[in-house]
Amino acid sequence: MKKPIKIVKIGGNVIDDDKTLAGFLDDFAALEGLKILIHGGGKIATKLAAQLGVSTQMIGGRRVTTREMMDVVLMVYGGLVNKKIVAQLQARSCNAVGLTGADLNCMLATKRPPEPIDYGYAGDIQQINVAAFEGLLQQKSTPVLAPLTHDMQGQLLNTNADTIAATTAVALAELYQVSLFYCFEKAGVLTNLEDETSLIERLDFPAYQQLKEEGIIADGMIPKLDNAFHTLRQGVTSVCILHHSQIKNIEKQHCKATNLCL
Amino acid sequence: MKKPIKIVKIGGNVIDDDKTLAGFLDDFAALEGLKILIHGGGKIATKLAAQLGVSTQMIGGRRVTTREMMDVVLMVYGGLVNKKIVAQLQARSCNAVGLTGADLNCMLATKRPPEPIDYGYAGDIQQINVAAFEGLLQQKSTPVLAPLTHDMQGQLLNTNADTIAATTAVALAELYQVSLFYCFEKAGVLTNLEDETSLIERLDFPAYQQLKEEGIIADGMIPKLDNAFHTLRQGVTSVCILHHSQIKNIEKQHCKATNLCL
Repeated sequence: MKKPIKIVKIGGNVIDDDKTLAGFLDDFAALEGLKILIHGGGKIATKLAAQLGVSTQMIGGRRVTTREMMDVVLMVYGGLVNKKIVAQLQARSCNAVGLTGADLNCMLATKRPPEPIDYGYAGDIQQINVAAFEGLLQQKSTPVLAPLTHDMQGQLLNTNADTIAATTAVALAELYQVSLFYCFEKAGVLTNLEDETSLIERLDFPAYQQLKEEGIIADGMIPKLDNAFHTLRQGVTSVCILHHSQIKNIEKQHCKATNLCL
Repeated sequence: MKKPIKIVKIGGNVIDDDKTLAGFLDDFAALEGLKILIHGGGKIATKLAAQLGVSTQMIGGRRVTTREMMDVVLMVYGGLVNKKIVAQLQARSCNAVGLTGADLNCMLATKRPPEPIDYGYAGDIQQINVAAFEGLLQQKSTPVLAPLTHDMQGQLLNTNADTIAATTAVALAELYQVSLFYCFEKAGVLTNLEDETSLIERLDFPAYQQLKEEGIIADGMIPKLDNAFHTLRQGVTSVCILHHSQIKNIEKQHCKATNLCL
């Protein structure tokens, strides 16, 4: 039987606030069994870029990664954010190891073609090195992934953390029984964004299609959910979308979250 | 019989120049067998600090690591420099993994007491986690160590790269036959700093003591050599001080270097 593993993704809103991050890391460190954490970038990179006179350009909600911006995200995601999380997890007796895609060649990507839109040093994942993760997990360590990949030609690349979470989950489903958790600032998928009580506790694919057509699920939730349903079709056992404060309840009955199913 | 391992330390002068670094990494990647690379900081941290309005204070050649400076060195050493080296080694088919002391709790330190001199977030190494290195080396990966440690309380600390190299070498001598290489910008230990042909090819401890008394070996070389001789007494098999361009010759007869012995 495959061993269970939890893959947890947190976004920038958790990282940007020290107290929120500390609370989340308390909960994450306490989770039993094998686990992997994937973190997004947060506003620190944008702030640092501004301080250094590097302009931030966004197209359709995605950052354009110029050469100068690549250095900024490498410093912030790969250094500052990743290593602070690792050090704080170690303080909570969680044997974390911080990784970019270059480390152990764990996430190989290719630079996105400049047509139709040039996103600069943005990486599209080609391969997850399952053996590298397996080696670390066998030693009871907890990989902490920065949203950075590499191209095996010496270039690091900026890669969306949601995509890293989904792709890693699918790749590890070969060897593990994978539960994927997307933590964010809402209680889960809501039918009314203004009303946290409108949480959909169980969302199947036909219902999702319906809600998408009706415009009830829209904007940023669509790529997130498309990605999430895709992982279920590719062998991931469960996908859950939840507020980051709920990660402590995921093994309990009363966890407030949206659970996806096909 | 213990397996041989090469522990190689490079300083800031190699890192600060892209072309020099690329050449060095060609040679390092080509070294056979188990190996570990330790890199210093270089001038990038000082430059970034200046851009961010963080002042750099040095006491006796050592950086004072204020809270703001700790963030800068974490970004530069732990992110920018470490991950660029890792990505470039991967491009050379060397399966590198970049680590700070927090990763896998591989280098545990305590913050240096503020008396007599307050160096801020400077870490004095307490323990090297040999099992963590062993696990990575067994999987044929090459650890690349940034000059950063942690205190197991969630705080990262700035630690001298020469000291990390020496302490790691001594700790790994339990399990491995360790050869330690200090690469820098001179051909080795010189009797006349202005004359590269004055290289001492073999330096034993009594001769070192003599040259120190005569003032022929002075300044920054003294702590480096004191550290180096100490590692020999603690079980390290060989210590070699050499120009970074010579790393390609360390298995050959004609390697220009200073070899230390007791």
